[in-house]
Amino acid sequence: MDANGKRWTYDDFEVGMVLDLGSVAVEAGEIIEFARQFDPQPMHLEDAAGEASLLGGLSAAGFHVGAMMMRLMCDGFLLDSTSQGAPGLDFLHWRKPVLAGDTISLRMTVEAKRESKSRPNLGLVTLRQDLFNQHNEQVCEMRSTVMFLKRNGSESR
Amino acid sequence: MDANGKRWTYDDFEVGMVLDLGSVAVEAGEIIEFARQFDPQPMHLEDAAGEASLLGGLSAAGFHVGAMMMRLMCDGFLLDSTSQGAPGLDFLHWRKPVLAGDTISLRMTVEAKRESKSRPNLGLVTLRQDLFNQHNEQVCEMRSTVMFLKRNGSESR
Repeated sequence: MDANGKRWTYDDFEVGMVLDLGSVAVEAGEIIEFARQFDPQPMHLEDAAGEASLLGGLSAAGFHVGAMMMRLMCDGFLLDSTSQGAPGLDFLHWRKPVLAGDTISLRMTVEAKRESKSRPNLGLVTLRQDLFNQHNEQVCEMRSTVMFLKRNGSESR
Repeated sequence: MDANGKRWTYDDFEVGMVLDLGSVAVEAGEIIEFARQFDPQPMHLEDAAGEASLLGGLSAAGFHVGAMMMRLMCDGFLLDSTSQGAPGLDFLHWRKPVLAGDTISLRMTVEAKRESKSRPNLGLVTLRQDLFNQHNEQVCEMRSTVMFLKRNGSESR
């Protein structure tokens, strides 16, 4: 829900709107668990290998960083919205490593919105995500387009 | 290792090279487990919600699809390479849903390569990933740039 207690629809997004989507602490065990399953490169599995790498320490896999951003988006607004999914990411840049012990915070900016041509009950909202660590250094940036039902749209395929 | 048993370095990539990176079966339990942790939207958690959504069935979260592609890259060549990580994704498009029971296969194409200006022991390789389901429908496409050590480069920060 937004500040007025309503469920986010396409109509509620305004270009230029900025939302603070909260923060999460990144634990070593979670970094290793994700890496074992999806990206078992040494710098995501072991302290020593991380320290010897360009990343400078045990660091979260890139898709783990993306997945944590997704969770912050879910908890921050997406689960209380009419989201119908996303066709893709325009870009995803890992600007600095996310290291074990970091706390990351997500800020979202509404960059653009447009009505769907093919589905009159839907609109597409372009959302920019900026992720920062506890030193206020930007660690990741991403832009995606998400489909939302309009306020008077019915949920249908 | 490549066909000649050597570890992939920057020098081993040729523009236009195509690699088949294998396939993986996508199980409902794994879809739900990933979604609970990172993307708890109903269409990734429950059959009925998936069927009622645009996606048409219990479907893997977008970042789960990306993470499975990453695992296929790791097993297909990255773990036997001099990879030093990736600055980012140029794009990631989810073209069709990845549904429970699907088997997905990854094909990689080397699109470009260039030497690093700032780090003479490194080169950057632009890799395009195309992911298909068992019906040979393309479900995802992605382009990333990965840093590799040159054949005579030493591993250093």
